[in-house]
Amino acid sequence: MPPLARCSCSILTQPRQKPEFAIGRAAIGKLQTPMVSVPDQLQSELDSLCATARWCYARGWVPATSGNFSARSADGPDERIFITPSGLDKGMLTPAHLLEIDREGRPVTGEGKPSAETGLHTVIYRERPDANSILHVHTIWNTIFSSQHSPQGYLTIEGYELLKGLSGVTTHEHLEKIPIIENCQKYDVLAIEFEEVLRTYPHAHGVLLARHGLYTWGQSVAEARRHLEALEFLFEVEARRLMGHGIE
Amino acid sequence: MPPLARCSCSILTQPRQKPEFAIGRAAIGKLQTPMVSVPDQLQSELDSLCATARWCYARGWVPATSGNFSARSADGPDERIFITPSGLDKGMLTPAHLLEIDREGRPVTGEGKPSAETGLHTVIYRERPDANSILHVHTIWNTIFSSQHSPQGYLTIEGYELLKGLSGVTTHEHLEKIPIIENCQKYDVLAIEFEEVLRTYPHAHGVLLARHGLYTWGQSVAEARRHLEALEFLFEVEARRLMGHGIE
Amino acid sequence: MPPLARCSCSILTQPRQKPEFAIGRAAIGKLQTPMVSVPDQLQSELDSLCATARWCYARGWVPATSGNFSARSADGPDERIFITPSGLDKGMLTPAHLLEIDREGRPVTGEGKPSAETGLHTVIYRERPDANSILHVHTIWNTIFSSQHSPQGYLTIEGYELLKGLSGVTTHEHLEKIPIIENCQKYDVLAIEFEEVLRTYPHAHGVLLARHGLYTWGQSVAEARRHLEALEFLFEVEARRLMGHGIE
Amino acid sequence: MPPLARCSCSILTQPRQKPEFAIGRAAIGKLQTPMVSVPDQLQSELDSLCATARWCYARGWVPATSGNFSARSADGPDERIFITPSGLDKGMLTPAHLLEIDREGRPVTGEGKPSAETGLHTVIYRERPDANSILHVHTIWNTIFSSQHSPQGYLTIEGYELLKGLSGVTTHEHLEKIPIIENCQKYDVLAIEFEEVLRTYPHAHGVLLARHGLYTWGQSVAEARRHLEALEFLFEVEARRLMGHGIE
Repeated sequence: MPPLARCSCSILTQPRQKPEFAIGRAAIGKLQTPMVSVPDQLQSELDSLCATARWCYARGWVPATSGNFSARSADGPDERIFITPSGLDKGMLTPAHLLEIDREGRPVTGEGKPSAETGLHTVIYRERPDANSILHVHTIWNTIFSSQHSPQGYLTIEGYELLKGLSGVTTHEHLEKIPIIENCQKYDVLAIEFEEVLRTYPHAHGVLLARHGLYTWGQSVAEARRHLEALEFLFEVEARRLMGHGIE
Repeated sequence: MPPLARCSCSILTQPRQKPEFAIGRAAIGKLQTPMVSVPDQLQSELDSLCATARWCYARGWVPATSGNFSARSADGPDERIFITPSGLDKGMLTPAHLLEIDREGRPVTGEGKPSAETGLHTVIYRERPDANSILHVHTIWNTIFSSQHSPQGYLTIEGYELLKGLSGVTTHEHLEKIPIIENCQKYDVLAIEFEEVLRTYPHAHGVLLARHGLYTWGQSVAEARRHLEALEFLFEVEARRLMGHGIE
Repeated sequence: MPPLARCSCSILTQPRQKPEFAIGRAAIGKLQTPMVSVPDQLQSELDSLCATARWCYARGWVPATSGNFSARSADGPDERIFITPSGLDKGMLTPAHLLEIDREGRPVTGEGKPSAETGLHTVIYRERPDANSILHVHTIWNTIFSSQHSPQGYLTIEGYELLKGLSGVTTHEHLEKIPIIENCQKYDVLAIEFEEVLRTYPHAHGVLLARHGLYTWGQSVAEARRHLEALEFLFEVEARRLMGHGIE
Repeated sequence: MPPLARCSCSILTQPRQKPEFAIGRAAIGKLQTPMVSVPDQLQSELDSLCATARWCYARGWVPATSGNFSARSADGPDERIFITPSGLDKGMLTPAHLLEIDREGRPVTGEGKPSAETGLHTVIYRERPDANSILHVHTIWNTIFSSQHSPQGYLTIEGYELLKGLSGVTTHEHLEKIPIIENCQKYDVLAIEFEEVLRTYPHAHGVLLARHGLYTWGQSVAEARRHLEALEFLFEVEARRLMGHGIE
């Protein structure tokens, strides 16, 4: 393993800008407002989101209550984001567990504490206007693969047919460049780094947090899941190939 | 990984012969004709085909809507091929999703766009008259194994009892030679290369597309699935063995 | 891979003794006799045997219709063996599929062709009077592990707590020695070699056929399955450990 | 594999203190007392414990009737521990199978022989007053990983986000130090060694028995399972990483 890069949060504790998406401690207390009824199409997406979360759990991709998942209902000022609460076992996730927040990350309805990583979802939705669903998982292979490449700050994958599982990619000759951010526990700072890499890599279909996990997204839950399946397949293939060569 | 062989399509853009199986853009628009009723035996095969597709999905063998599956009902001029549409999640495939095409790849009934790889199915059915079902999957091990051997143009497997899972093979001493074709996005050209390797390797039970996936077939869905299970088992064993030696 | 040892059948085509268990070609034609009713305890064992077979299939341990499974109802001259027919997909095995044979391997009731490996079951039942169930599987790790050690003729496993899953073993310090027989397609000859190793290794809990699979047994289906689970776990641990050292 | 460390039981056969938790041979005979009714909250924990055991079995984490699981209902002199009986297939565990014992390991109700490792559960409950559930599993990766590190007496894991799955851990920069005890069949002696390492490593979330398995615990079944999922994930990542470097 490369020497563990201590997170550089300390030099960033004065955020460059006031993060709009910060969730105040007061605001994220236990919420009592019941979940309101949602339109059919959104309900279908939330069902699909929860089915995806349970499927991820069954595969061992969100162990120990890790991972988080969200979908948003509309773009613009009225947009609502439905996101998994903190600390829930994803193997039994249902739409009733989801929290409704606005685009600034403020709770609207639902009970429980939003995931500490909520701010990463809101920054992705802001920087990727087409994205309507975000999936975040911790897998054996994204952990190993992100560890192998974290000193470089990105990884590249090229030459595999499965790259065509990524939207807009029409050939295996595509070179996918996935940024890797050092892991950090200050999520407001991490959100700023997310913003930077999302702008630096406008065509990336995912972002890796080193030794932590993958964030990927799509225009729908189905597309986000397709990206997830494609990227995790490619991470496993590439990580196995590199380990077969004694490369960390 | 061997240097990525750029696909040689450019030198082949004038196909040697007008491919019979090309699917015109017009013809593959959204089809409205409802699925007609099919005889019991065919229905049973289509049920079995879809069960196989769902089973492959559950094993992670057709991630990100990859893979495609087909069965044909009769040989000769009246033959019909039932094939998965493009872009469908194979985890929920049912016979109602299948498209009916003729032996030239022209749509007969069903809704949706036939897979871009339909032309590979029709060429296999033409070159392997006994085949009545074709399965195409993307697995971790066929991806790694085809990558290890693609410069050679084929791989050989010998000495395993599981080789007897391949029709006509009666001993583990059998040497199975599987051709490997460089991956390419021009499917009409790829179909010509398929035709060539199917003629060059008349006894092969499958064809690999490098870093893409396996095509295998059988006289029935059950036989095609048996070949799939046998080949994927052997790919995993051999790929693991080679990686244990630091061989890419 | 060690150079593939050609099977030595040719020098053994005159069996040392007339194998009692040989199944005549005539006798194993398609049988029409319906399965007779069986006592409750035996029925329970047959249910358990089939559940074990389906579970093995789900884990990928009997791909491509490989593997075979049996149970016997009583020792002595009246003993009956219930065994899987040849070529059946074990993922859907039910007691109705089983063939009833006597201790010489002659069909009693049931339809279908007994597995070609029936003679290996009868020799194990003869040499291990306490065994009432035999399980035979082809797994990735028993294939790799038997290949690694076949030139030596046996493998040893020592120092693991899971060894206590084997009947009569009370400490991890136990050294389990499993004989490995070169694979061969002449089952009457193979049965003689089985007889030899079962006598040479009276305490072994299983026999490996190189690059083919494992035979294990127990006093009941449950015990046979416990042995299977323990041995396969140990094969995977040991084979991974050896491959991590670049040892074939 | 490092040279197999013979267990040092012989030098410890005079335990430093009379172990309170020893289970007399007479006391653990077949118990006839029926399971008494339990309060709702405890029943819910026992249901959860058994669901966790069945889930572990499905993942291959308790092969061959290995592993054991317990929960306790209250601290103090009236505490009761519900624990899996010896030799049961964990794939079908239900609360009715559990044995009720007191804090000294003496049977209260339930049928069957308590696991030989009961004394390890009682010592953990004594040394970790907050623990109300203990899970013990044998996995491929904890077996390989404990074997890699057993000469050192402990292993360390650092730098992974999943460490936050362990209670009280708030950053991936946490260094988790897990003690490793040499395996031994004298469970009263092993219990003393457990007591020592639990005191020496007061912050450890688990204890490994070399080439045997993991013990972990939590304030509830859910927390114990979260620890299990987190630790097993980390063992797999780290063991794969080390094997990729040819380190045993």
